[in-house]
Amino acid sequence: MAASPRLALRLAYLGAPFAGWQRQPGKRTVQGELEAALAALYGRPVPVVGAGRTDAGVHADGQVAHFDAPIPIPVAGVVRALAGLLPPEVRAMRAWGVGASFDARRLAVAKRYRYRIAWRRALPPWEALRRWDVPYELNPGPMRIALAALVGEHDFAAFASSGHSGRGARGTTRKIIEAHLVSRGRRLDVVLIGDGFLRGMARRIAGALVEVGRGAQSEKWIAALLADPRARPPAPTAPAHGLTLERVYYRGKRHKATGKRE
Amino acid sequence: MAASPRLALRLAYLGAPFAGWQRQPGKRTVQGELEAALAALYGRPVPVVGAGRTDAGVHADGQVAHFDAPIPIPVAGVVRALAGLLPPEVRAMRAWGVGASFDARRLAVAKRYRYRIAWRRALPPWEALRRWDVPYELNPGPMRIALAALVGEHDFAAFASSGHSGRGARGTTRKIIEAHLVSRGRRLDVVLIGDGFLRGMARRIAGALVEVGRGAQSEKWIAALLADPRARPPAPTAPAHGLTLERVYYRGKRHKATGKRE
Repeated sequence: MAASPRLALRLAYLGAPFAGWQRQPGKRTVQGELEAALAALYGRPVPVVGAGRTDAGVHADGQVAHFDAPIPIPVAGVVRALAGLLPPEVRAMRAWGVGASFDARRLAVAKRYRYRIAWRRALPPWEALRRWDVPYELNPGPMRIALAALVGEHDFAAFASSGHSGRGARGTTRKIIEAHLVSRGRRLDVVLIGDGFLRGMARRIAGALVEVGRGAQSEKWIAALLADPRARPPAPTAPAHGLTLERVYYRGKRHKATGKRE
Repeated sequence: MAASPRLALRLAYLGAPFAGWQRQPGKRTVQGELEAALAALYGRPVPVVGAGRTDAGVHADGQVAHFDAPIPIPVAGVVRALAGLLPPEVRAMRAWGVGASFDARRLAVAKRYRYRIAWRRALPPWEALRRWDVPYELNPGPMRIALAALVGEHDFAAFASSGHSGRGARGTTRKIIEAHLVSRGRRLDVVLIGDGFLRGMARRIAGALVEVGRGAQSEKWIAALLADPRARPPAPTAPAHGLTLERVYYRGKRHKATGKRE
């Protein structure tokens, strides 16, 4: 019996060189680069499905994608081959065989994002690639209180990109499962786990928290934005380069390796 | 009385965009970018003296440089102004006033370099910028033994770039004060403190250690290269992107802040 030809990949990439994840004609995107590398490896077009459509400039450390391999190349060979075929800003960190019913996007039950901030602190260039350096003093106490208000199911319309349609059964309602602030000196990481994120939502949460942290808004502001989702102005957007998609969560075992290593 | 106009800078930079530290006509160098930024800030040419002439592609986390400020701009202002004037790949992390007798190059008594290695491990792009990924399994035990042979005063001609003249009173003799290997999983950092480094020396030490670690040379090979500095072949050169100048050491107090913050 033939082994399942469906493979999953864990991907890490820098956001700056790309117009986001999703393939777009005439633009350099992560999906586009990955599909080009897989086409070169397998000798035919290989469509890829990614768990999250990260925006232009947003990084990933744990993006997950799946594709159907036209030829049963050993998974370890796929990771090494992709290292030679992908630009240095994208890396397949791991490949594993999954069942034919696995779907990286539809079966994702939650995602974890990390937004990195530093305040009034010169950052070395390699860190500045992935951390927003703000020129204000930030006070983590009010930021923590504000962040706690996000946990639970809410209408996040005030945190959606302008023009967000809110299509689909859930509209602009999402559930934040976990939200915490990691503070070390003048570095602050906002860690968010949610069952889904509206376009721009993680960056607007970070932008709103900075307003609270610098004292321009009270610690109750985020709760007020959730209570009145059409409030104007909405939360401001933090720059893309501070944001990283860190992990995609799946339920059950369909995403586990099939154990076949051929 | 006028405050001392001499300022010291601690600099962090990525190596890849630059043809090394030293100013060269028609090439993008760190010294060139820094002098251009200072000229824009002060409105006249400001020559800069750096502690170490890092090669093309080599990073710095703690390069030290000095210059004479034509105008007494407050040091905190200099750091912020340079952040706006320098390309994002170079950052002044700190500025401080020093005595007129301070010289970043002549008074440096030692430097610390770190060479980052990973073996058989996919690295995320932000880490791959500064770490050499080798396709061999490396055994840290023999590498540690080989590394210990470097400590002390030796003729490092076998570790100098080809064509190294060995000019000056010391010729190709240098003193390694400390050499150790930090091993975490498949990541290995080679940390070297020396009173001086010949051109290419840190990278050839790393290159030789990888030969020992993968079993292509015995743990005694480095001692043999030191005992017979004209041995051929000399130590191979590890790629520039794994190397970072981490710290420059000074004796006495001339490099300390003068305490004037105007």
